[in-house]
Amino acid sequence: MTNGNGGVAGGTRGKPIKCNAAVAWGPGVPLSVEEVEVAPPGPLEVRVKVLFTSICHTDLSAWKGENEMHRKYPRILGHEAAGVVESVGEGVDGLAPGDHVIPIFTGECEKCVYCKSDKTNLCGTYRVDPFKTTMVFDNGTRFSLVDRNSGLRQPVYHFLNTSTFTEYTVLDAACAVKINPKAPLHKMCLLSCGISTGVGAAWNSADVSAGSTVAVFGLGAVGLAVAEGARLRGAARIIGVDVNPAKFSKEMGVTDFVDSRTCDKPVHEVISEMADGGVDYSFECTGISDVLREAFLSTHDGWGLTVMLGIHSTPKMVPLHPMELYGRRIIGCVFGDFKGKSQLPNLVDKCVSGEVNINFDGFITHKMPFSDINKAFQLLEEGKSLRCLLNL
Amino acid sequence: MTNGNGGVAGGTRGKPIKCNAAVAWGPGVPLSVEEVEVAPPGPLEVRVKVLFTSICHTDLSAWKGENEMHRKYPRILGHEAAGVVESVGEGVDGLAPGDHVIPIFTGECEKCVYCKSDKTNLCGTYRVDPFKTTMVFDNGTRFSLVDRNSGLRQPVYHFLNTSTFTEYTVLDAACAVKINPKAPLHKMCLLSCGISTGVGAAWNSADVSAGSTVAVFGLGAVGLAVAEGARLRGAARIIGVDVNPAKFSKEMGVTDFVDSRTCDKPVHEVISEMADGGVDYSFECTGISDVLREAFLSTHDGWGLTVMLGIHSTPKMVPLHPMELYGRRIIGCVFGDFKGKSQLPNLVDKCVSGEVNINFDGFITHKMPFSDINKAFQLLEEGKSLRCLLNL
Repeated sequence: MTNGNGGVAGGTRGKPIKCNAAVAWGPGVPLSVEEVEVAPPGPLEVRVKVLFTSICHTDLSAWKGENEMHRKYPRILGHEAAGVVESVGEGVDGLAPGDHVIPIFTGECEKCVYCKSDKTNLCGTYRVDPFKTTMVFDNGTRFSLVDRNSGLRQPVYHFLNTSTFTEYTVLDAACAVKINPKAPLHKMCLLSCGISTGVGAAWNSADVSAGSTVAVFGLGAVGLAVAEGARLRGAARIIGVDVNPAKFSKEMGVTDFVDSRTCDKPVHEVISEMADGGVDYSFECTGISDVLREAFLSTHDGWGLTVMLGIHSTPKMVPLHPMELYGRRIIGCVFGDFKGKSQLPNLVDKCVSGEVNINFDGFITHKMPFSDINKAFQLLEEGKSLRCLLNL
Repeated sequence: MTNGNGGVAGGTRGKPIKCNAAVAWGPGVPLSVEEVEVAPPGPLEVRVKVLFTSICHTDLSAWKGENEMHRKYPRILGHEAAGVVESVGEGVDGLAPGDHVIPIFTGECEKCVYCKSDKTNLCGTYRVDPFKTTMVFDNGTRFSLVDRNSGLRQPVYHFLNTSTFTEYTVLDAACAVKINPKAPLHKMCLLSCGISTGVGAAWNSADVSAGSTVAVFGLGAVGLAVAEGARLRGAARIIGVDVNPAKFSKEMGVTDFVDSRTCDKPVHEVISEMADGGVDYSFECTGISDVLREAFLSTHDGWGLTVMLGIHSTPKMVPLHPMELYGRRIIGCVFGDFKGKSQLPNLVDKCVSGEVNINFDGFITHKMPFSDINKAFQLLEEGKSLRCLLNL
């Protein structure tokens, strides 16, 4: 905060806010924490004071510019966060200044055919789209850099409907979920992406049943959140697969570990032996094509279900023969198949009441001030952190 | 029948039966109707007098030797039939001479982990296997050709757990479904493969809902059975896609037709326009990779489900990018996901009572004596028949 008005209590409504943001200027270029101007929210938009944000692998690959869709600069990355509504734009229902919110990168307008269908959580208007860099309402940005001398403005682009590496952001109201104010925001931050994605994949996408066997490929935060979801469902065995044994954590629900680097046969054969012919469910959280095939073959023939959570680069094709789909299934899952606005508040309430006991603390391996954001990126890239919580 | 004893009334029990069978001698070589010797059933086997059999595309491609798995000769093809139990082997429960049965190419032992799971109809022991040419019990054949002069025996191989192009066949009891004797066997013959596969794909695999939209790619008997299943579920619109407009039949539930040869744009774009963004369910019944992709893209983004029924040759891969699985689903389906022994008798009862009104007659486009089997193959190959019923 550089304007010193605290934001939430008013005074800023309808006016631009100057604040600090971590601006991405190019692939792999360290983020530059600098002053940006955040415009007031447009119609159906809200401006949010970000209190916590954390870094997910999608931010990391966007920062590196690994896909062409992530190459528009300057841009404010970040999509996992929690904060407080500062002001709301015209026509916004159900959100007011002071509300505690978590941003969701795949929104829910609650009106389109997608939102009205109980078979998908992909909104027709606010669906996650990595190519999208502007707001829906006017195709403009709400962030700008203002040259102190000339007064010239340069637009700063948005990211994944969220852009949370900033003290203030503007979200479509469809991408801001109002949650129980009793919920600790530093934990709720993780429901904004990683934990919801993993836990939801186990609960909603796979519907993991008690006593079942599970394999999770890739033990980052999302993979461990899958394990956490499976643990909460009473899975009997949760096999984690990674190249880094340091990721193995019984605390996080994983009961067995397979180090894919040291296997003397394909991982799916190892798992088939461990789990009496294969696991009931496997989860692919790496985005690597060969790993996807191993995950698929690790399930039990007949009823095995593979849930895909990783982001796969183009132009690779699904590494399966059509006939292999007779006997095993594979599905993709975005944001754990949660409808953000209609389902997350209930999950948050259950976390508050203790009915659902997700081990949030186990995911928060580091905490830092926002200004150390480049260090946090480094930790994630080196595989040393699950989630580094940045305090704004 | 060449031994003149009628079979069912006894007299043949425990003895070999000499009868006529249509023997395949090589890829594309006309079937030779000749006398074979059918051994008594071994343990857990039954010998069945086949009264009706019909020809499915799988028989056609096996006859042509289109895949290496179909190249073992001499062999008795055929897997869609209906008949009467002549005798039963040791240890057979629930089947007795005189019982009306339909063979199923993918059996159900009712004991293995697969049969005990409600998530698959693929039995661990008697699952369809086109490479399998002998009986499970002793890895031997029950058919042989006996040289009249020398008395030398030549084994004749089995096909798809069934081999129905013969007056008598031997089945594993797990592959013989006892049905209501009031059901007309010439119609029930079609439940042995084509109609169950198609109707079951709509009911069990896709769970087509009332008012939904459906596209069926390939309007052979299986495709039309899908349409019939969708019609019975109350689908609002059933779009048939084929290269042959003669296959379009409103009588069989298809409401609209797309001739894929005359489209001026990809079929999935045509269907997307017809069905307001795409159909809810598509069914791929051709086994052609490019058609599979069109079928997949023809469904509505967000909740579209494609059910694969076609047999795809190796080594083609699934013609989809992994990211395309975020938003649409694809599954494979064997025998309409029916568990043959436990679920078909109930379906037959409902057909008898009129509770389920499948238009069996619409599928039976031709009837011939068994001796005309090569003519029946020709009709199917030329796309002139749906099912030609052979009367033995």
